[in-house]
Amino acid sequence: MSDIIQPRVLKGFRDFLPQAEMEREALLEALTETFRRFGFVPIDTPVLEYAEILLGKAGGETEKQVYRFKDNGERDVAMRFDLTVPFARFMAEHAGELYLPFRRYHMAKVWRGENTQRGRYREFMQCDFDIVGVDTASADFDIMATIAQAMSALGVPGASIHVNHRGVFNRFLAKAGISGKSVEALRVVDKLAKIGAEETRRQLAELAGDTAADEVLEFIKGGDGFEATLERMTRIAGGSNPDSDRLAELFGMATACGLSGMLTLSPSITRGLDYYTGVVFETFLDEIPEIGSVCSGGRYNDLASLYTRQRLPGVGASVGIDRLIAAFEALGRSGKRGGYTRVLVANSDPTLCAEYQAAASALRAEGIACEVYPEAKKLVQQYAYAELKGAAFALIRGPEEKGRGAWLLRNLSERANAEYASVDAVIAVLQGA
Amino acid sequence: MSDIIQPRVLKGFRDFLPQAEMEREALLEALTETFRRFGFVPIDTPVLEYAEILLGKAGGETEKQVYRFKDNGERDVAMRFDLTVPFARFMAEHAGELYLPFRRYHMAKVWRGENTQRGRYREFMQCDFDIVGVDTASADFDIMATIAQAMSALGVPGASIHVNHRGVFNRFLAKAGISGKSVEALRVVDKLAKIGAEETRRQLAELAGDTAADEVLEFIKGGDGFEATLERMTRIAGGSNPDSDRLAELFGMATACGLSGMLTLSPSITRGLDYYTGVVFETFLDEIPEIGSVCSGGRYNDLASLYTRQRLPGVGASVGIDRLIAAFEALGRSGKRGGYTRVLVANSDPTLCAEYQAAASALRAEGIACEVYPEAKKLVQQYAYAELKGAAFALIRGPEEKGRGAWLLRNLSERANAEYASVDAVIAVLQGA
Repeated sequence: MSDIIQPRVLKGFRDFLPQAEMEREALLEALTETFRRFGFVPIDTPVLEYAEILLGKAGGETEKQVYRFKDNGERDVAMRFDLTVPFARFMAEHAGELYLPFRRYHMAKVWRGENTQRGRYREFMQCDFDIVGVDTASADFDIMATIAQAMSALGVPGASIHVNHRGVFNRFLAKAGISGKSVEALRVVDKLAKIGAEETRRQLAELAGDTAADEVLEFIKGGDGFEATLERMTRIAGGSNPDSDRLAELFGMATACGLSGMLTLSPSITRGLDYYTGVVFETFLDEIPEIGSVCSGGRYNDLASLYTRQRLPGVGASVGIDRLIAAFEALGRSGKRGGYTRVLVANSDPTLCAEYQAAASALRAEGIACEVYPEAKKLVQQYAYAELKGAAFALIRGPEEKGRGAWLLRNLSERANAEYASVDAVIAVLQGA
Repeated sequence: MSDIIQPRVLKGFRDFLPQAEMEREALLEALTETFRRFGFVPIDTPVLEYAEILLGKAGGETEKQVYRFKDNGERDVAMRFDLTVPFARFMAEHAGELYLPFRRYHMAKVWRGENTQRGRYREFMQCDFDIVGVDTASADFDIMATIAQAMSALGVPGASIHVNHRGVFNRFLAKAGISGKSVEALRVVDKLAKIGAEETRRQLAELAGDTAADEVLEFIKGGDGFEATLERMTRIAGGSNPDSDRLAELFGMATACGLSGMLTLSPSITRGLDYYTGVVFETFLDEIPEIGSVCSGGRYNDLASLYTRQRLPGVGASVGIDRLIAAFEALGRSGKRGGYTRVLVANSDPTLCAEYQAAASALRAEGIACEVYPEAKKLVQQYAYAELKGAAFALIRGPEEKGRGAWLLRNLSERANAEYASVDAVIAVLQGA
């Protein structure tokens, strides 16, 4: 026969074997359940779109990373590199069929030809949720409350949501006389955690002079508790203003919902993207904050200006599912389940296979996940397989048991068998176990 | 500002708006639950692979349809056009990390640049499940039992699984002296339902002569019940043989599991693909059989011969999710739910927003999906929104209700309000509703 093709995946791409995929599915299901409980609805968009649509807003780096090609009809197409741009196109295209406020979630793969040396993947999943069509504290809070609930649903024992408001920072910059350099200043401040206070000061001084640099550092100093920090920020920024009021409202709602302990006001968080215009947030796991934010987002004042003249303000966030999986792995808290099978119906006599299948069918009718081992092998081999699948029990009937009308239920971890007179009796035991 | 980019999707691609996506998610969740109950585990593979790997086995038509291009690293890559080829590559690549028998499910998008005039989409979802590593009646039956359970989980009131065995047909062809033309004969027979008996006979006669054509038509005549048809097929094919025995075993298991009524032995079903070597099956909805098979598959004797010398026999099937959705649409049985929200917490006074959020938080803690309307609008507008989201209730507190310490729960379909003294009392009512 012909030669074999070496099986391999592209660099930066990966297979998910069952254990990894089961864990990912469990996380996605917890997020789905959370989103639905907060009134978000799902949408889906194509993986391939016109390059013009996807890249309308994109700059150099994104454009270089995108998978773009001519299709068989010579159309200039690209694979989506995020879920935000397709969502903007979607909202513009379907404005007449939708309603506002529109709360959507979308969990799907995106592709970027990133440098894989930094441990990045070229195919990864994004989990986005947004509320579009309003600009209120209540909508901002919904996103934060959803993050808090998502962390709880994911089984995270503790997490902190760090909040800030771009508007307060901009007011401060204006007062300090450096608002012409706000984008650059925001970018420097955004790197504070990475580059440290000293380097931040150096870069700020280079940008705006020594005095301004000191003022900026004074402004972004956090750590006094939400209300004290807000009071100080507001004062330095020139006093009472609607953006500070928004933060106070958010804190009030968080307090009413018992979530204030999770909130930290972090004047240094601005999110690098110029996209955000209001609140911004990042989420850190208490056990492993150094892994970075596992859920980030913020408020933007116009989602779809590239595709429609309708103004669509919104607020949203994105769960970093790969980072969460990495965090759980690092903490030794990954799911290690081999499968969903609870009972393996062992196959000790192929002539009894119809009985095995009938027993399995009866178990499944009661919601018990099970499978019939599909060929007659040594029981010890079947037990080994059952263990790989994470099964707790084996159900056994050989010619002997058949002769006396019995079924054996084996507890695989205890290696102990118990005998029952019917499959119904076995089901009763399993339902009680 | 700059001109607007016309928002649109590529021909053959489509957005899923919430109602359509909710329905698709509900179907996928029903399938997921079914697969897990039968011991299948999920895997995932990359959307992009080396073109050499995906196209190793593919012929002209597939190759023309595939999305293939050079990536930024000048690699010859392609988007997967099915889930079978990546699964074969996966099994070959990870043989050392997996175990046999291996039962996997994989539900994901695939891409083919098909002619969209035939109502085909260029991006669609496949839902595959397979058992690899054994060749037994029990494994074959597992696939059929999974199909039966899937139909039930999907809410299909009645479905028929049509079964056949390629081996019995091949034995018959050998006996009739036309086995040299078996592939061609199978292809003609496979079109029986489409082209009718007369045209089938004409094509067969052209291929193998008049006598053989009559014998073939006699052989593929069905409709006598499973056992009688099997008996006749077996006789015409030359008497007792292992392939007929396999069909008898399958029928025995189906009978033991109460599924025999769903099974039809259809000697004319062979599945066009040369890939299948054993049992083959197709599934038709009783209410709308003309839409075609909604779940098809069969047994193959070597999954991954392109990528490994390890022989991997298997059996599997694929649920046609798009066809099912079309069937439900045609039958008027599509889900028409607007959202998951059960209770809309109305916003009649923005200064009470923290209370609204606290109430929503309390409802959600009891598993009740709800959302706070994010701005203070007229109640009638908020009710209209609630209806769009499919909510059954609105929870209302304005300054008056606040004054007397009350909450109003409005039944939106009955347009009737009831007053309660606390959110807890409201929750108790909702839990009883």
